[in-house]
Amino acid sequence: MRVVIVNTGTELLLGDIQDAHLSFIAHEIFPLDLRVEERRTLPDGSAIRDALEELFGRAEILFVTGGLGPTTDDITRETVADLLGLELHQNAELLASLRQRLEARRIKWTSRIGRQANVPMGAQILPNENGSAPGLYFPANISPRVSSPHLFLLPGPPRELQPMFRRSVLPILRLIVPLSDSLECRIYRVVGMGESLIEEAIGQKILAIPKVELGYCARPGDVDVRILGEASALDRAGAIIRTALGASIYSTTGHTIEETIVKLLSARNETLAVAESCTGGLLANRITNVPGASEVFVAGYVCYANQAKIDILDVDRKLIEKHGAVSEAVSRALAENARRSSGSTYAIATTGIAGPTGGSADKPIGTVYITFASANSETIAKKFFFPSDRETFKELAAQAAFDLLRRKLIASFCG
Amino acid sequence: MRVVIVNTGTELLLGDIQDAHLSFIAHEIFPLDLRVEERRTLPDGSAIRDALEELFGRAEILFVTGGLGPTTDDITRETVADLLGLELHQNAELLASLRQRLEARRIKWTSRIGRQANVPMGAQILPNENGSAPGLYFPANISPRVSSPHLFLLPGPPRELQPMFRRSVLPILRLIVPLSDSLECRIYRVVGMGESLIEEAIGQKILAIPKVELGYCARPGDVDVRILGEASALDRAGAIIRTALGASIYSTTGHTIEETIVKLLSARNETLAVAESCTGGLLANRITNVPGASEVFVAGYVCYANQAKIDILDVDRKLIEKHGAVSEAVSRALAENARRSSGSTYAIATTGIAGPTGGSADKPIGTVYITFASANSETIAKKFFFPSDRETFKELAAQAAFDLLRRKLIASFCG
Repeated sequence: MRVVIVNTGTELLLGDIQDAHLSFIAHEIFPLDLRVEERRTLPDGSAIRDALEELFGRAEILFVTGGLGPTTDDITRETVADLLGLELHQNAELLASLRQRLEARRIKWTSRIGRQANVPMGAQILPNENGSAPGLYFPANISPRVSSPHLFLLPGPPRELQPMFRRSVLPILRLIVPLSDSLECRIYRVVGMGESLIEEAIGQKILAIPKVELGYCARPGDVDVRILGEASALDRAGAIIRTALGASIYSTTGHTIEETIVKLLSARNETLAVAESCTGGLLANRITNVPGASEVFVAGYVCYANQAKIDILDVDRKLIEKHGAVSEAVSRALAENARRSSGSTYAIATTGIAGPTGGSADKPIGTVYITFASANSETIAKKFFFPSDRETFKELAAQAAFDLLRRKLIASFCG
Repeated sequence: MRVVIVNTGTELLLGDIQDAHLSFIAHEIFPLDLRVEERRTLPDGSAIRDALEELFGRAEILFVTGGLGPTTDDITRETVADLLGLELHQNAELLASLRQRLEARRIKWTSRIGRQANVPMGAQILPNENGSAPGLYFPANISPRVSSPHLFLLPGPPRELQPMFRRSVLPILRLIVPLSDSLECRIYRVVGMGESLIEEAIGQKILAIPKVELGYCARPGDVDVRILGEASALDRAGAIIRTALGASIYSTTGHTIEETIVKLLSARNETLAVAESCTGGLLANRITNVPGASEVFVAGYVCYANQAKIDILDVDRKLIEKHGAVSEAVSRALAENARRSSGSTYAIATTGIAGPTGGSADKPIGTVYITFASANSETIAKKFFFPSDRETFKELAAQAAFDLLRRKLIASFCG
């Protein structure tokens, strides 16, 4: 089926904001054997009308993102109703829930906000759990006047669109798409190996299995290996992947590495502390994004300044003077002292040079020491080199630190 | 002039790769008073032909990215030549430089590679300093057969496209575009006010000014107000915005609130520590994303567990027992002790209930106390209520904490 995405929003075309919807939607519909055949990005305003009019005749499933909010430039709902010749009526339930939402947030009611409760006749409401504007679904050819595709109007903010898509859009798509039951999609999340190294390890062998489609999705320090096909063929492909990538696979259930860690620690009733210099709070932030983190995460020490390393985590000043703050010795001291001071089972520590300044010939920008300390085993320190921009460096260092911890947890599970 | 970008590449539609071209090109052409009016993302193959045929009649400047390489799915050059009825001829100079390039890299020559030296009659070559495929420029209506826009074929990899754009495309655009340097874009970044409240405060008044375009872009706790138009009209609009939004505006130069804070602190030679319970490292992480943060950021204390608040920041156990960890009293103790313990000029602290569990009737999920402590003035604590999903809650609390600090810094600047 011809799937088309229309992203609306002048801000997208000004280049100030990266669109996240294409990537999200493409990944979500992939297991249904659907691919996006075209994406258009359009400004708020009349261009939306022209494009929809054209696409109504060509697309079979059409996702339109943005333009459902309360402000004057939000006109998607009204434009679609007009194109399809559907009257808008105010939905009492939506209106009440909007009022409730605003009261709970102590936000003043304005008449513009009420527009978000307008629903074109015959459209199905897709509840928005994280925002005020609901999504809308129009079955194909909803109006006798116009031929039209299955049409989904979705909110612009990713944190609103994404849960709505999973909860309300996918179930509708499953009814629309003539599903071949036997087709499956499996995803192996891999840490610490680049895409080309993975391709070299598994590419030829997997492509030799008939009717298995292989794809990759890479993020800093992280690659999703995706196979699509019939279950029996995927079993063969999965065996190849497991043999080749082994412990580098950290999840087959779509979890992040920090979710995997929180789960492993919870299962063992163990706890974690982190001591961060160069990752600057990223480890703590990612761990505390996981619901239930408070069960296992005790404390984070972001010792950014040298003096903070000395004051907060009792790192010996002489150690810093002798080896430098970015050194194995200081990394070890940070991890061991964080663990002892917090009373946690484990601690991980990072110290490195994020850039853009601060590098030397001896320790260039991108150098980082990562240490794992445990109440039950010896301390392990590793040196990595991640020359890149500041934020990517932090992501790569965090990923390496989490991976060091994860491997130790798994090893002691199995040992 | 109607500017359209066509991004070609199946990998873009699979969602595995984020397109970087729209953002780059939009920013580069903005000073020429050019704005992208539409962007299409298309798979390799016949869809490109259909789209180009349609867009030749509508666009005035058309950028096509990708599909210039040596592999079978690279067909942009040939498709355009065919559509415009221009013969391809092999350019001897390009061919020689391609051979030289491959020899230097010890890559075997194949006939496919030679295709990249084919140039449609009348097209201008845009040299590629970082790759093998050159770009091509076709002046408007180059062929007597077809009406066509100013057409630029550009390579897919950003590291090839970007230098080519700056060196070869911009000079051509400057000749094409009748330059008016009067159109401007101004962005006011606003914290702590929702989109609809802002719209209510300024919408009618701004729209009453002729030829000013108004737009919004909302993130958690944060809204960009964007006005476009001639300088004199923007001065009027800007005055309205400043009067209505006042100190809620934290940047007019596109900086984030954490960048604004690092800059304010640097200018004053002052330092910051953060004590985080519910934001779990997000404050520290965002501050340390700013290059130069090490000048002003001393330490972050992520005291997630109650015991960590007692052990690390010396919060009185009785205070926690009496008021609860989520309370004004504990929030004050966290901020004041973090400031004293780190020796920083200022500290901000957060303690709240992120959810999804842990709320009570008295302190529902979303409750958060935020405190500002200073070496020079009294401590200020505030209570907020941000009922939402866990990550949005953290973002909203972080934004409120940064805003409290920012307002105090500005006030003491002015006082």
